[in-house]
Amino acid sequence: MIGHNNEEHLALIADGEARIDWVRRYSPVLNGMVSNTLADGSLKGKKIAVVVHLEAKTAFLALVLADAGAEVIVAGSNPRTTNQSVVEALRDRGLTVVANADGDMVSWEKELLAAADHEPEYVIDDGAELTMRIGIHRPALYNRLKGVSEETTTGTARLYALHAAGKLPFPALTANDARCKHLFDNRYGTGQTTLQAMLRLTNRQIAGATVTIIGYGYVGRGIAEYAKKMGANVRIVETDPVRAVEAHMDGMSVGTAADKVPGASMIITATGGIRAIGAPEITTVDHDAILANAGHHDLEVDIDALVGMASSTKQMRPQITTYRVGERDIHVLSGGALVNIAGGSGHPVEIMDLTFSVQGIGAHQLINANLAPGVHVLSKELDDSIASAFLKSKGIQLDPGRPEQEDDVMALINKMPAV
Amino acid sequence: MIGHNNEEHLALIADGEARIDWVRRYSPVLNGMVSNTLADGSLKGKKIAVVVHLEAKTAFLALVLADAGAEVIVAGSNPRTTNQSVVEALRDRGLTVVANADGDMVSWEKELLAAADHEPEYVIDDGAELTMRIGIHRPALYNRLKGVSEETTTGTARLYALHAAGKLPFPALTANDARCKHLFDNRYGTGQTTLQAMLRLTNRQIAGATVTIIGYGYVGRGIAEYAKKMGANVRIVETDPVRAVEAHMDGMSVGTAADKVPGASMIITATGGIRAIGAPEITTVDHDAILANAGHHDLEVDIDALVGMASSTKQMRPQITTYRVGERDIHVLSGGALVNIAGGSGHPVEIMDLTFSVQGIGAHQLINANLAPGVHVLSKELDDSIASAFLKSKGIQLDPGRPEQEDDVMALINKMPAV
Amino acid sequence: MIGHNNEEHLALIADGEARIDWVRRYSPVLNGMVSNTLADGSLKGKKIAVVVHLEAKTAFLALVLADAGAEVIVAGSNPRTTNQSVVEALRDRGLTVVANADGDMVSWEKELLAAADHEPEYVIDDGAELTMRIGIHRPALYNRLKGVSEETTTGTARLYALHAAGKLPFPALTANDARCKHLFDNRYGTGQTTLQAMLRLTNRQIAGATVTIIGYGYVGRGIAEYAKKMGANVRIVETDPVRAVEAHMDGMSVGTAADKVPGASMIITATGGIRAIGAPEITTVDHDAILANAGHHDLEVDIDALVGMASSTKQMRPQITTYRVGERDIHVLSGGALVNIAGGSGHPVEIMDLTFSVQGIGAHQLINANLAPGVHVLSKELDDSIASAFLKSKGIQLDPGRPEQEDDVMALINKMPAV
Amino acid sequence: MIGHNNEEHLALIADGEARIDWVRRYSPVLNGMVSNTLADGSLKGKKIAVVVHLEAKTAFLALVLADAGAEVIVAGSNPRTTNQSVVEALRDRGLTVVANADGDMVSWEKELLAAADHEPEYVIDDGAELTMRIGIHRPALYNRLKGVSEETTTGTARLYALHAAGKLPFPALTANDARCKHLFDNRYGTGQTTLQAMLRLTNRQIAGATVTIIGYGYVGRGIAEYAKKMGANVRIVETDPVRAVEAHMDGMSVGTAADKVPGASMIITATGGIRAIGAPEITTVDHDAILANAGHHDLEVDIDALVGMASSTKQMRPQITTYRVGERDIHVLSGGALVNIAGGSGHPVEIMDLTFSVQGIGAHQLINANLAPGVHVLSKELDDSIASAFLKSKGIQLDPGRPEQEDDVMALINKMPAV
Repeated sequence: MIGHNNEEHLALIADGEARIDWVRRYSPVLNGMVSNTLADGSLKGKKIAVVVHLEAKTAFLALVLADAGAEVIVAGSNPRTTNQSVVEALRDRGLTVVANADGDMVSWEKELLAAADHEPEYVIDDGAELTMRIGIHRPALYNRLKGVSEETTTGTARLYALHAAGKLPFPALTANDARCKHLFDNRYGTGQTTLQAMLRLTNRQIAGATVTIIGYGYVGRGIAEYAKKMGANVRIVETDPVRAVEAHMDGMSVGTAADKVPGASMIITATGGIRAIGAPEITTVDHDAILANAGHHDLEVDIDALVGMASSTKQMRPQITTYRVGERDIHVLSGGALVNIAGGSGHPVEIMDLTFSVQGIGAHQLINANLAPGVHVLSKELDDSIASAFLKSKGIQLDPGRPEQEDDVMALINKMPAV
Repeated sequence: MIGHNNEEHLALIADGEARIDWVRRYSPVLNGMVSNTLADGSLKGKKIAVVVHLEAKTAFLALVLADAGAEVIVAGSNPRTTNQSVVEALRDRGLTVVANADGDMVSWEKELLAAADHEPEYVIDDGAELTMRIGIHRPALYNRLKGVSEETTTGTARLYALHAAGKLPFPALTANDARCKHLFDNRYGTGQTTLQAMLRLTNRQIAGATVTIIGYGYVGRGIAEYAKKMGANVRIVETDPVRAVEAHMDGMSVGTAADKVPGASMIITATGGIRAIGAPEITTVDHDAILANAGHHDLEVDIDALVGMASSTKQMRPQITTYRVGERDIHVLSGGALVNIAGGSGHPVEIMDLTFSVQGIGAHQLINANLAPGVHVLSKELDDSIASAFLKSKGIQLDPGRPEQEDDVMALINKMPAV
Repeated sequence: MIGHNNEEHLALIADGEARIDWVRRYSPVLNGMVSNTLADGSLKGKKIAVVVHLEAKTAFLALVLADAGAEVIVAGSNPRTTNQSVVEALRDRGLTVVANADGDMVSWEKELLAAADHEPEYVIDDGAELTMRIGIHRPALYNRLKGVSEETTTGTARLYALHAAGKLPFPALTANDARCKHLFDNRYGTGQTTLQAMLRLTNRQIAGATVTIIGYGYVGRGIAEYAKKMGANVRIVETDPVRAVEAHMDGMSVGTAADKVPGASMIITATGGIRAIGAPEITTVDHDAILANAGHHDLEVDIDALVGMASSTKQMRPQITTYRVGERDIHVLSGGALVNIAGGSGHPVEIMDLTFSVQGIGAHQLINANLAPGVHVLSKELDDSIASAFLKSKGIQLDPGRPEQEDDVMALINKMPAV
Repeated sequence: MIGHNNEEHLALIADGEARIDWVRRYSPVLNGMVSNTLADGSLKGKKIAVVVHLEAKTAFLALVLADAGAEVIVAGSNPRTTNQSVVEALRDRGLTVVANADGDMVSWEKELLAAADHEPEYVIDDGAELTMRIGIHRPALYNRLKGVSEETTTGTARLYALHAAGKLPFPALTANDARCKHLFDNRYGTGQTTLQAMLRLTNRQIAGATVTIIGYGYVGRGIAEYAKKMGANVRIVETDPVRAVEAHMDGMSVGTAADKVPGASMIITATGGIRAIGAPEITTVDHDAILANAGHHDLEVDIDALVGMASSTKQMRPQITTYRVGERDIHVLSGGALVNIAGGSGHPVEIMDLTFSVQGIGAHQLINANLAPGVHVLSKELDDSIASAFLKSKGIQLDPGRPEQEDDVMALINKMPAV
C-alpha cells in the first residue's frame, strides 16, 4: 500500500465506496438477476482471479462475486488504469488486491505473478494476459486451472490459438462471443467513449474534422458511426473486402493507409493487431494531427517507431505527447494506450452491466456446468436471460409470439414423399 | 402471350431492352468479374431455372447465365411483380419464359409447374418456392436435381428444415448466408426501398411520423434505421430479447404489439413469419393508419382477418386498399405483398449486382465444385472475390496488411510447456 | 375539357375526389382551424386565383377557399404537373379551372392569361408567375389587384424587386417567409421527396453513392441532410462563405463545381438561380451520372446547353432522358423540371397542410387586414396559431412558461441612473 | 497572486503557455486574417476589457489584442471557470489580469469592479455582466464607454432592453448575431461539449437513455441533435409553438415539463431564462436522474429550491452533488453552472476561433467605424470575411458564381408599365 496517514486512507476508502455505489445504481442486471443467480452457494470458497481494468465497474463485479462467497483476487489489466480509491475500498471489504495505481509495466508483471501465486481456480481475464503468464511461468498451476472467462476479441483469438496448439487443458468461455457482450460493448461503448475521451483531451471539434479510422470491425465501426453522426468526414482503412464494402455503403471514404492517413486531423487505430500506425504511416501523418488507439494493444500506434523518428518529444497537455518528426508535430494521446480507458473512464456503466453480467453468469457456468476442456460460448438461453433482465429493468415487455405466426414449413415438407 | 399487334410487341421488347441496359450500366460486378468467371464453358447446356421477381435486374442475371451457355428457364416468384416488357425482351433473346404479367396466384402455380416441366437441373430459387413444389408435385425430378441456390432467409430456413427431415438429396447453397448478400440486401436495400415505396404510394411525410416496425432482424433494422434518420419516431416490436436490447440502444421505443401498434400512423411487418398483424393487432390499429409488409410472406399482414372484420372495402388510391373496421379506416399497401417490390421497383440495382453476383458464382459452384447433398454456404474466398470486384469497380484499393502487424500469439504459446 | 365519354368522365371525377379525400384526412390544420377561420363570411364573393401545381393538395386548398364562399379560379404553375382527375373533380364542384393535363409551355401561357381574364382580386401565386404576367399583359387589372400571397423564395425575391422598382401597388404577403412555411416546406418536404423521386425513377442506391448538391440554402441542406443520413457521400457547391462553413461542419465535402461535379454519380441543383449546371459543368460530368433539379427554375439544369453539346438524345426509361456528349451518357430526370413534383407527387400532405394553411390565413389577412401596398410577412401570432393547431392535432401540449422563469433584466436596468 | 514559490510559478506559466500554444495551432482565423487586420495600428493604446470564461482560448484572444497594441484588462465571466496557469501566463506577458482561480461569487464581483476601475474604453462582454455593473456602480465611466461587443444571446437581450430603456449611450455590437457566431457556437459547440461533459462526469451511456431537454433554441437543438444521433430517446419541452413543430418533425417527443420530465434519466436546461427546472419540476424528477445546465444562467436549475426540498446533500463524485428529496436521489452536475464549461473545457478550439474572430473584428469595428449609439450587428461583408478565412485555412475554394446564373427578374420588371 502507498504510504499515507489514516485520514487520507479513510478518505480514499470513502471515495472508492462512493464510486462503486454510483456503478451499482446503474447496474440493474448485475445488481439483480446475476447477484440472485450467484447466491445459490456454488461460488462459496472458490478462488477467482479478476484481471480487468481496475476501476469502479470492475470493483463492483469483484464485490458481487465476493458477496456470493468467492475468494476474489483482484489485479489490473493495465498499469495505467488502476484507481487507488477503488483499490482501498476493495481491500477494506476484505478482498485480495494485488494492484496499485501509478504502476508501470514492470510492477504490473509482478502484480500478475502475485495474482497467480494466490493460486486461483478460475480467471476472469482480459486479453488472456494472466492465463498466458500462468501457462508460461506457473505451468503446474496452469494444468490445475478449472476455467477461464475471457473479455476481449484479442484474448479470444489467443484462446483459440492455444486450443489449436493443444495447450488448453481447461474450459474457456469467450464472454466476448456472447451477444450481450460484443453487440454492445465494442460498438456502443467504445464508440461513445473513444471520441468522448479524444475530444476532452484535445478540446477539439468533431464536426467538420477529417477522421481516419484504421479497422472496421465492431470497434472501428462503432467509432466511425458516432464520428460520422457528429459531423466528421470519416475515412476507413480496412483489409477485409466485405467490411470495406460495408464501410463504403455506410457513407465512409475507404482506401489504403497511404491514401487516407494524409489529410486526416485525427487518426484512430482499431485493428486488434499491432503497428496499425507504424513507420510507413508515420511518414505520411499531417502536421498537428492527433493519434489515438482504441484497439486492444498498446502497440497499435508504434511508439517505438515514433521515438526513433522524432527529433524531440514534449508533453503538450495532460495525456498529449508531441513528437517532432521532421517539420511536423504529431500528437499521441494517452501514450497509445486505450484512449477511452487511459484518457477517460472506460465504457459506460450500462454497457459494463451487460458485459460483467456475462462474466458473472460465465463464472457460474464454469463452476457448475462441467464443461469439457476447450473454448465455449455462453448458451443462447443464458445470453437471453441477461438481455431479458436488462429489458425488465427498463420496464420493457416483449411479445412471446403466437403459434399461428410461425411459418408452417413442416406442413409442406410432410406433403413430400421420401427421397 | 398477351394478344397485341406487332408494333406494340416491338415497343415492349425495346422497353425491356432499355430497362435491362439500365441495369447493366450499374452492375459492374455481374457484368464484369462474374460474367468472366462464368465464361469458362462449364455452364454450357446446363438447364437452370431462375425463379425470382421477374423484372429488369433478374432479367440481367438470366441473360448473364444464358450468355455463358446455360439453358435458362425463367419464372416469377410473385404474380404481382412480373414486368411484361422484360418478359418479351428475354423471349426475344431466346430464353424460355413461363411467366406473364397480370397473373394471379392460380396462374402463378401453373407457371411454377411449367418451369418444373422444363426439367431444370439447377434452381435459383426465392423462398424455396419452386424447390418445394418440385418436391411435392414432381418427386422424380426432385431426386434428379443437382443443386439449388436460395435467395431469402425464409427459404434458407426451409432448406435447413428439409435437410433435418432427411429430404434434401442435393446440395443447396444459401446465397442469403453469403456476407455479400445478407449484409447489404436486407439492410440497405430493403431499408431504402420499403420507405421509398410507402412514401410514394401515400404522399405522406416521414419526419415526425410514428412508425411501428414488427421485427428487428436485418430487414426490420434496416427500415428502422432509415426511418429514424429521416425523422420518424420509431417503435419496435420484437420477440428476441437481445435484438430488443439492440433496438433500445439504437434509440428505438421497444415493446409489445399491444403497446406499440396503437398510436402508430404507419405499421410495417418484417418478421419473416406470418400474421405479424393478425386479428388481435388489427383491433388496436389507429383510424387512418397505414399497413405495409416488408417481410417474406404476403401473409404477414393478415388480409383474410381484415376482410372478415371489415364492413366495407375500397380502393382509395393506386395500391391502397381501405378497410372499414368499426369506426376506423385501415389502409393496406400493395395488398400486403412486399411493398418495395409490388409498390416500387424492388431493391436498387447496386444491391442486386452484389446479390445476383452471389447467385451467379453460386450456380458456378454448384456446377463445378461437386458439393455433397446438404446446405452449404459460399466460401469466404468467393464471397471476398465479389466484394473485391465491387471495390475495384469503385476505384477503391485496400491494404493487404503487413506481416509485422499481426498479433504474434504463437511466440507466446511456444514459450509454454506442453500441458 | 378533353373529349371523352360520360363513363370515363365520371371515373375521373371519382378518382379526383378520392385523391382529395386522401389529402383531407392528413390535413388537420387546413381542414380544422383554417376552415373555421375562413368561415366568418369575409371571403364571400371574393375572386381568388390559385396558381400552384395543380394536384390533389392544391385542389383541397381551392375547395377550402370555395367552401368559405370565394369565387376560385384555378390554374397550374407548371404544365407538367397538372392532374386531370383533380381538374375534373374541381370542375364538378363548380370551380373555374383554366388548366388541363398534357399541356406545354404554350398552352400554359394561355392558361395564365385565361386566369387573368377572370379578373381575380387576389392571387395565391407560385414564383410570382401570374402576378408578373398580369403586370406585363393586363396592366389595368394589375393596378386593381387587392393582394398577392406568394409561395416560393424565388417569387418573394421578385416581389421585393417589384417593390424596389416602385411597381408594387398592392400588398403582397410572402407566405414563404412565414416560419410555418419555410422552416418545413423547403427543408423536410423537398429533402424527403427529391431523393424519393430520384431513387424511384432510377432504381439506384443512395448508400455509398457520391451525390453533389449545388446550393446549400434551405432546399439544398434538406436534400443534403437526408442524403447523408441515408449513406451518401455528399458534396456541396455553394457561393456563400458562411453557408459553406455550415456545410463543412455538417460533414459535407465543400468546394467548387469544377472540383465536386466530376466523380459524382448524382448531381442535384438547388440554387434558385439558373444554369447551375451549365455548359462548363456539363463538360466535367461523369459518364452515366444523373442530373436532377430541386430548385425553382426548370432552367437550373441547362437543357439547351446539353442539347447543343449532345450527339444524340434518347428516352431511356420513363422520365429519364439520356444525352450522349462525347463518350459520356448523361441522364437528366424529368426534363430538368422539379424532380419531386414532375417525377413524384410533390411535397408530403402534412407539409402542404402547413404551407397551405399559411396561404389560407394569408388570403384572410389580405382581405381583412387593410394592409398597405408593399411586401408583408405573416405576423408571429398568426404563424404561431398555425403551429399551435398542428400541435393540437397531434395531441401535443406546450407549457406556457411561468413568470418567475423570465430573466428579470429590468430589475437591473432600473438600478442604473439615467445616462 | 496566490502564494507559491518561484519554481511552481514558472511551471504554471509554462503550462499556461503550452495551453495557449495548443489553441493557437487550431485557430487559423484568429491567428491569421484577424491578427493581420488588427495590425493596422488602430488598437494601439486602446483600453479593452475582456470578460469571458478565462481559459486558454480566451487568453489567446487577449494576446491577439495585446499584440495589436491594445492595453488589455482580463477578467473571468464565471468564478468557477478561471484557469490559474493561463492567468499566470498572461501576467507574465504583461497583461492586466484581475481574476484568479478558486474564486467565488463574492470575489468575482470584486474582480469585475477591479476591471471597471482600470477604466476600459471598450468591453468584450459575456452576458453584459461587466457592462451592467459599470452602469450601476460606475455611471460616469458608463457614459464614457466607447463600445461593447457582446458574446451571448442573453447579453444581447439585455443590450436591446437597455437601448429600449434609453440607457445605451454607446454603440454595442452583438457578436452573437453574427452568422459566424450563432450558427456554429450555439449549435455545434454546445451540442458536442455539453453531452461530452455530462457523459464524462457520470460515466453513463447515451445510447438508449431517455434525455429531456428544456428549450429548443439553437443551444437546445444542438444538444438534441447530438443526443438523438448518439442513440438517445430525446424529449423536448418548449414554449414556442413553431419550435415545437420543428422538434416534432426532427423526430423528438415534444410536450410539457409535467409530461416529459418524469421517466427521463438525464434532464438538460437550455432556455436562456431561469428556473427551467424549478420546484414544480423537481417534484416529478425520477430517482437517480441527472440534471445539468447548458443555458446562460447558473439559475436554470433552481438549486435553492433543491436545497429547500432536500433532506440531505452529498458530493457523490467530482462535480456531482446528490440531493435526497423524499425517497429520490437527484444528481446535479457542476452545481448547475454551464456543464460544458464548468465540467469540461468549454467550446472546441475551432468554434472559438470563429467566435473570437467575430470579437476581434468587432473590436476593430467599434474602434474604427464610428458607429452611432445603439445595438449593431456585424456587417455581412465582415461576417463573410471570417468565413472565407476559415475556408481558406481548410483549403476549401468556392465558386464566385457566373452572371448568367442569376434570375433576370429585372428584364421582366422592365417590361411592365409604370403603375
